[in-house]
Amino acid sequence: MLEQKLRDVVRDIPDFPAPGIVFKDITPILKDPLLCMAIVDEFVDRLEGIDIDVIAGVESRGFLFGLMLATRLGLPFVPIRKQGRLPYKTISESYKLEYGQATIEVHEDAVPMGAKVLIHDDLLATGGTVVASAKLMEKLGAVVVGFSFIINLDFLNGSGRLMRFSDNIISLVKY
Amino acid sequence: MLEQKLRDVVRDIPDFPAPGIVFKDITPILKDPLLCMAIVDEFVDRLEGIDIDVIAGVESRGFLFGLMLATRLGLPFVPIRKQGRLPYKTISESYKLEYGQATIEVHEDAVPMGAKVLIHDDLLATGGTVVASAKLMEKLGAVVVGFSFIINLDFLNGSGRLMRFSDNIISLVKY
Repeated sequence: MLEQKLRDVVRDIPDFPAPGIVFKDITPILKDPLLCMAIVDEFVDRLEGIDIDVIAGVESRGFLFGLMLATRLGLPFVPIRKQGRLPYKTISESYKLEYGQATIEVHEDAVPMGAKVLIHDDLLATGGTVVASAKLMEKLGAVVVGFSFIINLDFLNGSGRLMRFSDNIISLVKY
Repeated sequence: MLEQKLRDVVRDIPDFPAPGIVFKDITPILKDPLLCMAIVDEFVDRLEGIDIDVIAGVESRGFLFGLMLATRLGLPFVPIRKQGRLPYKTISESYKLEYGQATIEVHEDAVPMGAKVLIHDDLLATGGTVVASAKLMEKLGAVVVGFSFIINLDFLNGSGRLMRFSDNIISLVKY
């Protein structure tokens, strides 16, 4: 079963990026092409019935499965990037980190008005980056119709912060 | 024809990231899922006959088509990332930028000794990051058997710097 396989393969790294945090390392997933295919298949199954026009992926790890999923579904892919990386005209959204803040950006012509957007990232933690991504999409006049993650660190209750955008919060393994 | 389609779709952004530089913006490619599929198909065709064990992709844009290509070929994918991003034990390689320097890293267990590695990125410019990536692979005891890029800025002669690692330097469009 995919969920158990993911539990077996995802690697716990203690004290990264800071003391006391246990980081979920997805790089072992990427070494297994059959598992990567199974992840995309499972996302496709779980997204059935949701009307999606565009998939937006969050830099950097959201690029990995985001583009593969979009291409598989025959949908456009939009990269959401850290400040200063996108070359064309952008709009931006800042959000708080534990210390300081971060800013993400998207091209202002990334999605048409009214487009139904699925936001993808590898992992949902507290949801700061994903909430900022959803706000970016709304600034462009798009509608957030769902979220997909490989991993949901459920004990951090990121889902609770996403519910005001959409109830469709898909993850393949929860901790 | 794929090459002409890429020339039509890739967007020139003048003076990014610095005055006088014309940046090749690939985000319009990502909006076209049929074009994304055609890119992967073309890489698969052009890589035929090269014996590859692993595909390594360079953060961030090398993640986009790197994982899709690896999964398509049934090969493991290894992310090469900027300093401080990979959670497990890493080895690193620094290289010069126009001003200052940059450091990239890979997990020390990323590839087995003797593995034949294809290095993928979206764009070849002067080749600094890609040469550093090839050196990282050699530090791990792997053998670089080729490089794949969507775009090669041929006038910067990045290919010349890659030849000492491998003659297999594939790009889908040259400028």
